[in-house]
Amino acid sequence: MADTAAAQGPSARTAPPAGRDAPPALPDFTEESSAALVNASWAGTGDDRLREVLTSLVTHLHAFVRDTEPTHEEWEKALRFLTAVGQKCDDTRQEFILLSDVLGVSMLVDAINNRKPRGATDSTVLGPFHMVDSPPRPLGDEISLDHVGTPCVVAGTVRSLDGTPLPGALVDVWQANGDGFYDVQQPGVQPDLNLRGLFTTDAQGRYWFRSVVPRHYPVPQDGPVAELLRATGRHPYRPAHIHFIGGAAGHQPVTTHLFVEGSPYLDSDAVFGVKRELVTPVREVDDAERAAGFGVAAPFQLIEFDLVLAPEGASERSAADRG
Amino acid sequence: MADTAAAQGPSARTAPPAGRDAPPALPDFTEESSAALVNASWAGTGDDRLREVLTSLVTHLHAFVRDTEPTHEEWEKALRFLTAVGQKCDDTRQEFILLSDVLGVSMLVDAINNRKPRGATDSTVLGPFHMVDSPPRPLGDEISLDHVGTPCVVAGTVRSLDGTPLPGALVDVWQANGDGFYDVQQPGVQPDLNLRGLFTTDAQGRYWFRSVVPRHYPVPQDGPVAELLRATGRHPYRPAHIHFIGGAAGHQPVTTHLFVEGSPYLDSDAVFGVKRELVTPVREVDDAERAAGFGVAAPFQLIEFDLVLAPEGASERSAADRG
Ligand SMILES: [Fe+2]
Ligand SMILES: [Fe+2]
Repeated sequence: MADTAAAQGPSARTAPPAGRDAPPALPDFTEESSAALVNASWAGTGDDRLREVLTSLVTHLHAFVRDTEPTHEEWEKALRFLTAVGQKCDDTRQEFILLSDVLGVSMLVDAINNRKPRGATDSTVLGPFHMVDSPPRPLGDEISLDHVGTPCVVAGTVRSLDGTPLPGALVDVWQANGDGFYDVQQPGVQPDLNLRGLFTTDAQGRYWFRSVVPRHYPVPQDGPVAELLRATGRHPYRPAHIHFIGGAAGHQPVTTHLFVEGSPYLDSDAVFGVKRELVTPVREVDDAERAAGFGVAAPFQLIEFDLVLAPEGASERSAADRG
Repeated sequence: MADTAAAQGPSARTAPPAGRDAPPALPDFTEESSAALVNASWAGTGDDRLREVLTSLVTHLHAFVRDTEPTHEEWEKALRFLTAVGQKCDDTRQEFILLSDVLGVSMLVDAINNRKPRGATDSTVLGPFHMVDSPPRPLGDEISLDHVGTPCVVAGTVRSLDGTPLPGALVDVWQANGDGFYDVQQPGVQPDLNLRGLFTTDAQGRYWFRSVVPRHYPVPQDGPVAELLRATGRHPYRPAHIHFIGGAAGHQPVTTHLFVEGSPYLDSDAVFGVKRELVTPVREVDDAERAAGFGVAAPFQLIEFDLVLAPEGASERSAADRG
């Protein structure tokens, strides 16, 4: 009777065993060793950044599993949920971005990538509706082509961090109408390019245009992310806002929103996009001269929203510096 | 000129503002506050367990993002990867389980749910190929219907933790053939129910059957998880193994593998399933009497693998108790 190792290929990496016991070089997978064992498997990763990210991922993911101790059934349910999120995606729907949004991760990634000097306008999420280029428009133009909503004027100045106005700055805006829908959500109902505009500031760094006050609106209601919100008693709404991207030569661009003060859900945005200083009132202005300057009749509704851009290379506010 | 709040619905939850500054009740989303803000949103979750799991998820997920500081492009790439994983799934393919497997999470969940008293047979992952019921077979039956591989006998005893043999115990086995394929992967090539069997131990708690030595095999090679393995220089192979589920009245069942000693990849299983004590040699036995008992000719290849089951209610080995 002889022991023979059942080596099954030329690439066997383990030494033939001497007897019944397995070679001591074998890993021993336990609850305590699991993350270290898996992270050792990234040793051959050519891309240093990929190895760094995967190592952190496994460390945190295994810690989450150890903390929550899911049953097999719970873990299967979690994987089925993620599968459904992936399968809900198509050319015009990205349910994983929505999941990232409602877990606050999109905003966290945004914050990490937009550490600005104090005084610069805060960023917030881009959102999914900047899918068409905004049409260049002259200052003062009307961007509400369907006139659904309360008319208003939106005006402000683009300035550098030291207060210097920035002429020739670009102000890209897009928004929902007074019913809470973007043009791309209502093709054939709203005119193309409704409530979108690309403006260039005047010699004093000013921009202004005519629009309507947007309405709050829900994130998509027909997918697994909406089911998660329902299961947790969370509403699906975003407070009323106008999207802005501001950019000027020599300055860091900012992607942000103007949030309409008084809107419902400012304290519970489904995607956590609200920052205090972005909340802006709609004021009734009864001033014939100002009204004439905007091409409207008095009294009129006015939203004033300035954009303050940090110069390129301005020292960024790190996480540690934040107040 | 008068300030008016643009309250846009009856459900406004924020008090009308007194002036330009936003109400102080508004959350302030920062890198430091993000997880706490998101976790506050679970307050209305009716299911306590769901709230607990989501709170832990957000805490660990935000910590991962803070640690790695992904760019917008990196985060988008991660979400595109997860989307592709979801979209690879169909009725017969579960790429998210595969992702969980190659990240070691399936094994961690298995370990957490199978804390057994010392001495009981360790568990490992179920795997995706137990999709058909194993056919009941008499002891000694041949389960290799295609005869692809080196013939061998597999034999052992099912015992309780105190050593008592367990007659009438069920031993459910399934395995790949000598080319590394399961029957369900080669319909029309392998006979139905090839290399599957459900055995019942004899009066001495023994089981035995005739089979072939299985070959190592790769996890699926045509999806995003395989791309991840390639990007990290990891091979896709699982070392050669035979799947077992052992069960007996009054005892906790065990789902495990017998790993073939000497197989390649024992030290680098793509799904981290190897545990030292599950690695078992294939021995050549030149004993005519034993051969006759198994219905084979001497010399023959023998794999001996006992299953030790913990009695129901036996105190479980907790994570803290593990050596
Ligand atoms: Fe929006
Ligand atoms: Fe297997």
